[in-house]
Amino acid sequence: MFDLHPRLAQDTGLVHLLPLSQVRLMNDARYAWLILVPAKPGLREIHDLASPDRAQLTEEICLASEALERLFAPDKINVGALGNLVPQLHVHVIARRQDDAAWPRPVWGQGTAAPYEPDVLDQTIDRIRGALGGA
Amino acid sequence: MFDLHPRLAQDTGLVHLLPLSQVRLMNDARYAWLILVPAKPGLREIHDLASPDRAQLTEEICLASEALERLFAPDKINVGALGNLVPQLHVHVIARRQDDAAWPRPVWGQGTAAPYEPDVLDQTIDRIRGALGGA
Repeated sequence: MFDLHPRLAQDTGLVHLLPLSQVRLMNDARYAWLILVPAKPGLREIHDLASPDRAQLTEEICLASEALERLFAPDKINVGALGNLVPQLHVHVIARRQDDAAWPRPVWGQGTAAPYEPDVLDQTIDRIRGALGGA
Repeated sequence: MFDLHPRLAQDTGLVHLLPLSQVRLMNDARYAWLILVPAKPGLREIHDLASPDRAQLTEEICLASEALERLFAPDKINVGALGNLVPQLHVHVIARRQDDAAWPRPVWGQGTAAPYEPDVLDQTIDRIRGALGGA
């Protein structure tokens, strides 16, 4: 059975369920930062996925990237599957701006997360859900 | 026409040509660090690829990951497509160890590259080429 890692549950909010992955928003208002978590148990690396799921994950990464581009007009999308701290397979999809807090460095481990105001968190999740094709 | 970005040409050596991507080795002996560069012009983001090429790229990422696992028995594979500094689409596939120089942080922007001795560079490229199925 798939269980979301407690650290991901703590740091993110659910945006939308895609065929393979949960799309979640990192609660850090410094960046428009999504995390895709393929909802199958026991995954650690991308190559743990069967080949059709690998292709599906990539399509979902692209869907998330294009939603962020439409909503936030970033300068660059960053995609990463690291998992050095949280071993459950998860893929970061982050809208980067040349004026953001970490540019041009990666966002991981830079400074401290700035949680959204609760109503802004809900609005942001709603906007991204809409851009992903959710109701 | 596809031209490798000069920064990638400077920092990496060619390991193998896969159907879509050049597989290149970062000249930094601190990590077993591959870079996959889809050899088509004008690419910046993963979603710039057509859908079959997206699936192929993911298979090539997995092939590279599994080769690194067989050769180097890392604790974790890190995969990232950032491009904040080098805009040509390229995907990092890095064998991480809990005793490496940056663990558990990402490798990007940590310290200074430690170039291989030339003969070790050639041997490492040969070993990885073999593990990727090349002659």
